[in-house]
Amino acid sequence: MKDKVTIYDISKKLNISAATVSRALNNNTKISLSTRELVLKTAKEMNYKQNRLAQALKSGKSNNVGVIVPYINRSFFSSVIRGIEEELTPHGYHVIICQTHENYKNEIEQINTLINTQIDGIFMSVSKTTINTEHIEKALAEGTPLVFFDRKKEVPGVSSVIIDDFKAGYLATQQLIGQGCKRIAHLSGDLNLEIYKNRHDGYTKALEDNNLEVDSNYIIKTNSKIESGASAIEELWKLKKKPDAIFSASDYTALGAIQELKKMGLKIPKDICVTGFSNEPFTKYMELPISTVDQTPQTMGKIAAQVFLEQMGENKKVSIEKKVVLTPELIIRESSNRSIKPVSA
Amino acid sequence: MKDKVTIYDISKKLNISAATVSRALNNNTKISLSTRELVLKTAKEMNYKQNRLAQALKSGKSNNVGVIVPYINRSFFSSVIRGIEEELTPHGYHVIICQTHENYKNEIEQINTLINTQIDGIFMSVSKTTINTEHIEKALAEGTPLVFFDRKKEVPGVSSVIIDDFKAGYLATQQLIGQGCKRIAHLSGDLNLEIYKNRHDGYTKALEDNNLEVDSNYIIKTNSKIESGASAIEELWKLKKKPDAIFSASDYTALGAIQELKKMGLKIPKDICVTGFSNEPFTKYMELPISTVDQTPQTMGKIAAQVFLEQMGENKKVSIEKKVVLTPELIIRESSNRSIKPVSA
Repeated sequence: MKDKVTIYDISKKLNISAATVSRALNNNTKISLSTRELVLKTAKEMNYKQNRLAQALKSGKSNNVGVIVPYINRSFFSSVIRGIEEELTPHGYHVIICQTHENYKNEIEQINTLINTQIDGIFMSVSKTTINTEHIEKALAEGTPLVFFDRKKEVPGVSSVIIDDFKAGYLATQQLIGQGCKRIAHLSGDLNLEIYKNRHDGYTKALEDNNLEVDSNYIIKTNSKIESGASAIEELWKLKKKPDAIFSASDYTALGAIQELKKMGLKIPKDICVTGFSNEPFTKYMELPISTVDQTPQTMGKIAAQVFLEQMGENKKVSIEKKVVLTPELIIRESSNRSIKPVSA
Repeated sequence: MKDKVTIYDISKKLNISAATVSRALNNNTKISLSTRELVLKTAKEMNYKQNRLAQALKSGKSNNVGVIVPYINRSFFSSVIRGIEEELTPHGYHVIICQTHENYKNEIEQINTLINTQIDGIFMSVSKTTINTEHIEKALAEGTPLVFFDRKKEVPGVSSVIIDDFKAGYLATQQLIGQGCKRIAHLSGDLNLEIYKNRHDGYTKALEDNNLEVDSNYIIKTNSKIESGASAIEELWKLKKKPDAIFSASDYTALGAIQELKKMGLKIPKDICVTGFSNEPFTKYMELPISTVDQTPQTMGKIAAQVFLEQMGENKKVSIEKKVVLTPELIIRESSNRSIKPVSA
């Protein structure tokens, strides 16, 4: 493979500085006309190609898209990214990724960074701490199409691909009720975030539909960390009536809960059933595989990418707004299934 | 959606050349003062924003760095990225991430993408299929500093931060020998990759130092996938003398091996000890926690970032080449520790 000719090659050949070559190529009037002409002629002879970015600045298209997620190391997010890549790579797009670590300020910075790299579009799942949408509106105002996935905000003109979290919460709770559980606790996420609110609402609706009491003592706010699941169990076990099932809005919290329950000598699923959320790979690997909700992340990524491509294909002056809602899949494993005889028992 | 305002829009509106607009915006004195004023006023009215990228093209500094990894969803890589972010964010850098999926062609594309977004530096761990280093040399030739971490190639002028994989392989094998194991199999990675070669060499050296035979039948090439670990066990169990320990160069392969061994009714660590590699979180979560090697990824990321900062601080014309080798940490858990009485047994 022949190396691409760079400004350094031209600089070497003409024995002038690379900076001068660069300025000359950009037709900077600080450089004498004769030098500019010489550089351009030499560049042409050497088959120099001005970089794609410089061209992007002119054409307004870089063929790069950005994805902003809270964390890259959550299976859900990395799988959505995989779906986006699979759909967009054949169309010549490159995917670059930023993570916010759930930090609103980072999110603003990341959006600016992506816009400044002349991105053609942004896919994002908002951070838990995102309090307003000015940074998103700014991206739109600058002409950068944006697609939300999973965690969205209401911003006019922005398409979104989400799953039906209400249904997911309902299905998971209904399954626990089907196992004979009557005191189902919910380890919730931050209810200011739509996804967690909907999971919570699905949970309470399933209880109501089955004439079971919704007891606020059974709803513990957690933060998707393992430790948070363990301390939620500690809190619940201070109650007079202990729960006989846990529906957790996160797999990590479910794992922490299971670890704590085992420490206390409880048998799962016999004494208590547990269901998590997200289908993190470890839920399957455990010796006691954990029931969970699969959010079909690769499909979500693919559809988000398709929505973006549609938007790019149309006259960009027309604003298209699509709201896609995917159906979650409840995966019933040993941790909430009393009819399976555990292999290791 | 409104298209982004470019200098071409301003040029059209004022019926002057784009070059004149550009120069006026850059306050070039070759342009008359009245024209400069008119352009600035119009730009303001049209809500034109000179983008940081265009400025970066001039200043040669974007404050963005890129990280290229095989997969974002391996705990090792996401933790290195975290380390890089923690070190660079306070210095005003933004980190953007690309994944190659172990595909050499993707890697070339990603490097080009990053260079074209005027990145200030690249951190990378090369893909398994990377056959030559022209794309890396090209990045260097264009003046983009590059730091390898974990998986490197020999490229003059490129610094690297790695762990002592030989020592890791040696320590892990030595510990298995210490448990009384005499027929230790090795599930290796691709030996063309330095890291896997070194883990393998550490393994054989430990055997030799303990007067144990190195039997090539006990060395099975695997691909870091769970299934690969299961099929390695199938292969090993065709041998007359079955192994009494497994040292796997990957946690995922170790997990697959453990699942297969359990299916066959073997007790771990009583009948056979197993040690993995990378300290993936699931190794700790398992009911039978898996011994593994911690590669201190956040430290690796931080040091890689420090090497980059040093390079940026110096006169960039001076090439500094640093080779940092970190010491791995063997984490002994139940899967290879016969002195711990398992809680659940």
